[in-house]
Amino acid sequence: MTVEVTLLKQYPLFSDLNETQLREVAQLCEAECFYPDHILLKEGQPGTKIFILVKGEVELLFTIGEERPTRVGLATAGEIIGCPGLVPPYTNTATARSLTETEVLAIDIADLRELFEQDCPLAVSIQRHIIQSLLDCIVGLRLEVGG
Amino acid sequence: MTVEVTLLKQYPLFSDLNETQLREVAQLCEAECFYPDHILLKEGQPGTKIFILVKGEVELLFTIGEERPTRVGLATAGEIIGCPGLVPPYTNTATARSLTETEVLAIDIADLRELFEQDCPLAVSIQRHIIQSLLDCIVGLRLEVGG
Repeated sequence: MTVEVTLLKQYPLFSDLNETQLREVAQLCEAECFYPDHILLKEGQPGTKIFILVKGEVELLFTIGEERPTRVGLATAGEIIGCPGLVPPYTNTATARSLTETEVLAIDIADLRELFEQDCPLAVSIQRHIIQSLLDCIVGLRLEVGG
Repeated sequence: MTVEVTLLKQYPLFSDLNETQLREVAQLCEAECFYPDHILLKEGQPGTKIFILVKGEVELLFTIGEERPTRVGLATAGEIIGCPGLVPPYTNTATARSLTETEVLAIDIADLRELFEQDCPLAVSIQRHIIQSLLDCIVGLRLEVGG
């Protein structure tokens, strides 16, 4: 299912884009729904999609040594999942698994990178928001490390 | 002290830049040295500089609740310090303190953001490497959280 520009405007990731850019991004987005226990991304696999979580909860699992994957994060509405697929080595650093019924906007990374090539200011704007999102994640992890 | 283009080429942050772009960045860089116990950045303050650590060790301190700042990271040669100053709200999320004699390349953030405005592909390239660096930091913190 394709998505409306008005929906995209709700997400910080796209908040600096103009109407033309929003329409370009909307053409790449698919609204998808998953049941609980669906694997959205698998650690160590090539990143093919990024997801903006619209509704639901997704846990992030990470393998430490030879142990079973450990939960290292919980994504809730508004968060972006799958950023590692956007930069070399284009590989997921965690597994993402839905805990509840989940709605997402899914964007094909190959298409998004092509759009980045065509529209440099759009790339800068989206990257800037990804940086903010990763910095928020770092602050959250620091609280866990130190707490 | 200004820096040479050849020095910049050693750092991944600048590895995709062409000669012209490297010269533009070199003009913004200052080589600086600090004694141990120098505060490079202070948590909660506006970010005015980013640093590429050339030599030495810098600890990152973070305030959790009302406690004294806790060490949440250790930066070593090649790492970037001060990324939060590049994106809204342009505020340092940690204090950075040298543990040893330390050499850095310091870049004024206002100047760098101006260069980003003038040269969009340069901004995309540098931001991509910042995203990679933050993802590395997240993986390191996950190891600590789960370990």
